[in-house]
Amino acid sequence: MINFIDEGKYKSLKIRVYIEDTDAGGIVYYVNYLKYLERARTEFIRDVGYGKAAMLDDKFLFVVHSLKVNYRSPAFLDDLIVVYSKIEKASKAAILFKQIVYREEKLLMEADVKIVSVDPNHKKISFLPKKLIDRLNHF
Amino acid sequence: MINFIDEGKYKSLKIRVYIEDTDAGGIVYYVNYLKYLERARTEFIRDVGYGKAAMLDDKFLFVVHSLKVNYRSPAFLDDLIVVYSKIEKASKAAILFKQIVYREEKLLMEADVKIVSVDPNHKKISFLPKKLIDRLNHF
Amino acid sequence: MINFIDEGKYKSLKIRVYIEDTDAGGIVYYVNYLKYLERARTEFIRDVGYGKAAMLDDKFLFVVHSLKVNYRSPAFLDDLIVVYSKIEKASKAAILFKQIVYREEKLLMEADVKIVSVDPNHKKISFLPKKLIDRLNHF
Amino acid sequence: MINFIDEGKYKSLKIRVYIEDTDAGGIVYYVNYLKYLERARTEFIRDVGYGKAAMLDDKFLFVVHSLKVNYRSPAFLDDLIVVYSKIEKASKAAILFKQIVYREEKLLMEADVKIVSVDPNHKKISFLPKKLIDRLNHF
Repeated sequence: MINFIDEGKYKSLKIRVYIEDTDAGGIVYYVNYLKYLERARTEFIRDVGYGKAAMLDDKFLFVVHSLKVNYRSPAFLDDLIVVYSKIEKASKAAILFKQIVYREEKLLMEADVKIVSVDPNHKKISFLPKKLIDRLNHF
Repeated sequence: MINFIDEGKYKSLKIRVYIEDTDAGGIVYYVNYLKYLERARTEFIRDVGYGKAAMLDDKFLFVVHSLKVNYRSPAFLDDLIVVYSKIEKASKAAILFKQIVYREEKLLMEADVKIVSVDPNHKKISFLPKKLIDRLNHF
Repeated sequence: MINFIDEGKYKSLKIRVYIEDTDAGGIVYYVNYLKYLERARTEFIRDVGYGKAAMLDDKFLFVVHSLKVNYRSPAFLDDLIVVYSKIEKASKAAILFKQIVYREEKLLMEADVKIVSVDPNHKKISFLPKKLIDRLNHF
Repeated sequence: MINFIDEGKYKSLKIRVYIEDTDAGGIVYYVNYLKYLERARTEFIRDVGYGKAAMLDDKFLFVVHSLKVNYRSPAFLDDLIVVYSKIEKASKAAILFKQIVYREEKLLMEADVKIVSVDPNHKKISFLPKKLIDRLNHF
């Protein structure tokens, strides 16, 4: 359907824009895209067999370490947008996601997001479980 | 300054409306008033000597049990609004707050909020500590 | 599947709980249920043929006039919950929604929400279009 | 008081962390820092004499063009944090902000945020008014 990205490498999540997502400028509030990105990452990881229960067994929490975002074009109330997500790299130290958002063929935003894991008390960085890394690298 | 409410019974919290609070209708998103109300209740309780640390010692969490809200007039970006809060009744089972929001003399919304406390595992309702109730009733 | 409510009268919307919806108490932040309710009302009204475009033609905006909410049991990260919504009454002056939220057979919250419409400048209440009221009453 | 940054170049805004800002990980939800940053930029610009009314006269809207964020350490419920903001560069095309967040002497996050202005219909980039740029560069 779309040919501007290599869909084979991306997982996609459709999201409807609701009034809660917009601001007085009449567009999606730029902060709220980051919620969309996290929903997409969560479904990505669930899709490779790692729901919350599985993660808690391994006693780690994902946290966002850093991000780079470019906003290209606004989204509006009632838009149906798609978040495309792929793994740039997964190692025991970090997962790098590339995420891009489209409304049909219109590019809305692009982001690079680096995820690390910490112990549940947020005291120190912990290593990601090998089986999760393997699944992410071979999906 | 204002004479439409008995200020002696209310504590007030000034809040600035930021873009994060608004929606595509150009007004404060009705859901976000509830965040304002909670900020005001939190400061109210801190003001009677009950910050988070004190509460955790007593091993309970506040949760909202029920609420009734009337929206009267919209608030807009950059407005400086005031949340007035008073205790209608505090007992070991529940705290009833009356909260009203004004922009200068314009009434924006009114709410009745019932707070109960639960154990930190959300398994059961717990009684509020007597010293907190006493402070709330005698402030 | 469920027999605790008369499903014939309700429309349902499934919603996944994401980390954005939770708070430090480990549960869905009580304010965020109101976003779920609005998503469900939006889909309800879209379902009877009234998307945003149709509404703007009629030059009115929906606003929440008042609400009553009872919180019964907490929702947690990753829960899949269902919002059931029905019209209690639709007239040219207001729409009354009854909305209840379940996780499987567990009741999480109940709400009565009164919607009115205003002109786009928020200056005055406007009447709801007759064709919308008819569709709501005869769905 | 603090000597780790050159305060002469920064404006600061104190922010209290409320429950609305936290997530089930027990920390401030990483997305919500961006709201703090925008509050700080808004106050920065108001402080140089450019409130909303002044901007609307000039018929432009600020939008975030891009951002880079590093999260260093978590913030928790009830924390009192400080957002320090300075202008890296202001030209008619864009404003570059450097923003850093501390809780006392603990660095929590750093961000570079590029702001541009658009016409109110979001159709095209517009130039920032010269008097605003002058005030930003000479504050």
